[in-house]
Amino acid sequence: MSAATTPLNFGAMTEVFQFLMEIDKLKSVQRRTKVLGTERQENSAEHSWHFAVAAMSLAPFAPEGVDINKVIRMALIHDIVEIDAGDVLVYDLAARAAVHDQEIIAANRLFGLLPAPLSTQFLDLWNEYEAGETPEARFALVIDRVMPMVMNLSNQGQSWVENNIRLEQVLARNAFIADIHPQLWLHIRGHLDNAHQQGWLK
Amino acid sequence: MSAATTPLNFGAMTEVFQFLMEIDKLKSVQRRTKVLGTERQENSAEHSWHFAVAAMSLAPFAPEGVDINKVIRMALIHDIVEIDAGDVLVYDLAARAAVHDQEIIAANRLFGLLPAPLSTQFLDLWNEYEAGETPEARFALVIDRVMPMVMNLSNQGQSWVENNIRLEQVLARNAFIADIHPQLWLHIRGHLDNAHQQGWLK
Repeated sequence: MSAATTPLNFGAMTEVFQFLMEIDKLKSVQRRTKVLGTERQENSAEHSWHFAVAAMSLAPFAPEGVDINKVIRMALIHDIVEIDAGDVLVYDLAARAAVHDQEIIAANRLFGLLPAPLSTQFLDLWNEYEAGETPEARFALVIDRVMPMVMNLSNQGQSWVENNIRLEQVLARNAFIADIHPQLWLHIRGHLDNAHQQGWLK
Repeated sequence: MSAATTPLNFGAMTEVFQFLMEIDKLKSVQRRTKVLGTERQENSAEHSWHFAVAAMSLAPFAPEGVDINKVIRMALIHDIVEIDAGDVLVYDLAARAAVHDQEIIAANRLFGLLPAPLSTQFLDLWNEYEAGETPEARFALVIDRVMPMVMNLSNQGQSWVENNIRLEQVLARNAFIADIHPQLWLHIRGHLDNAHQQGWLK
């Protein structure tokens, strides 16, 4: 087989590997949450892995009709835009609003590295996640928000303490979970009250 | 809703989160490959993310009949056993054979943290990947092997140079790719010859 006999596939495969090497940079985007029991901040690549395994593991608790495979795929690509736009603390509302336009530009540049129709598929999936309207996007948003909370609950409130986060901020920013998954919110909510009593949340 | 009305779900959800916090340790298992352009070794959690996105991105090139969602799930859990058994260089054949029994024990312990039937589902999926017989396991093995090669090709042969790897070792250990995906092997093979000429592979 020569490149000449399969020019499109060879070119497209090269583009896929160029995309994959470009997104290696997500391993260098740092988040506020630290790897449990260490002083190292987790990066957005390993967080995306953790989030995707969480989606697999929470499948039996997903709202009816949710396609877990789609949630897993959202988890895998949801933070890729941070390669260009950076990670912003979920409780920094002004910074989050400011970064949104940069994220859209980033999504077009990064997913645009892929050959068609993959580029459009990835961009559509990211847009669906960001819009937060479909059952899959809503469940994905819940898991993305729950993971750092559970890590903080397992790590003496590490990133809450370091960023002076108050219980009412956590409740305000995450109350939407109660609408999407009341049982999960009830589960977390009890632990948050306990974290407040422990002094991990002001 | 009280815990008393949904005792099974609450207990199972707690077990899922305990599993998810336990596998946070995969973020501290170091591999030989370095994050591109840095001096930091990648860890097995971020590698698993990269592998899973590669599976998504290589979907158009998958052998006919391969369920990509299953390949993605295999990518996400394939290295979790390294939390107990460690990462072993693919070219260290003696160490790889020695670690296999430890990996089986690790799979039982770690996936056993999950509630039924998740524990069995995850263990079955890991066993299927390890056996390398189904189309999904075979394609997953190819991607897992291709990723560090492509990273080395993008990083002046970094882990090959550091571990004194020879071209014939790479060819011998990866020739199975030609059976599973001839086009992909042809693609890689040309780059390997070039790496040899560059002195990145002895």
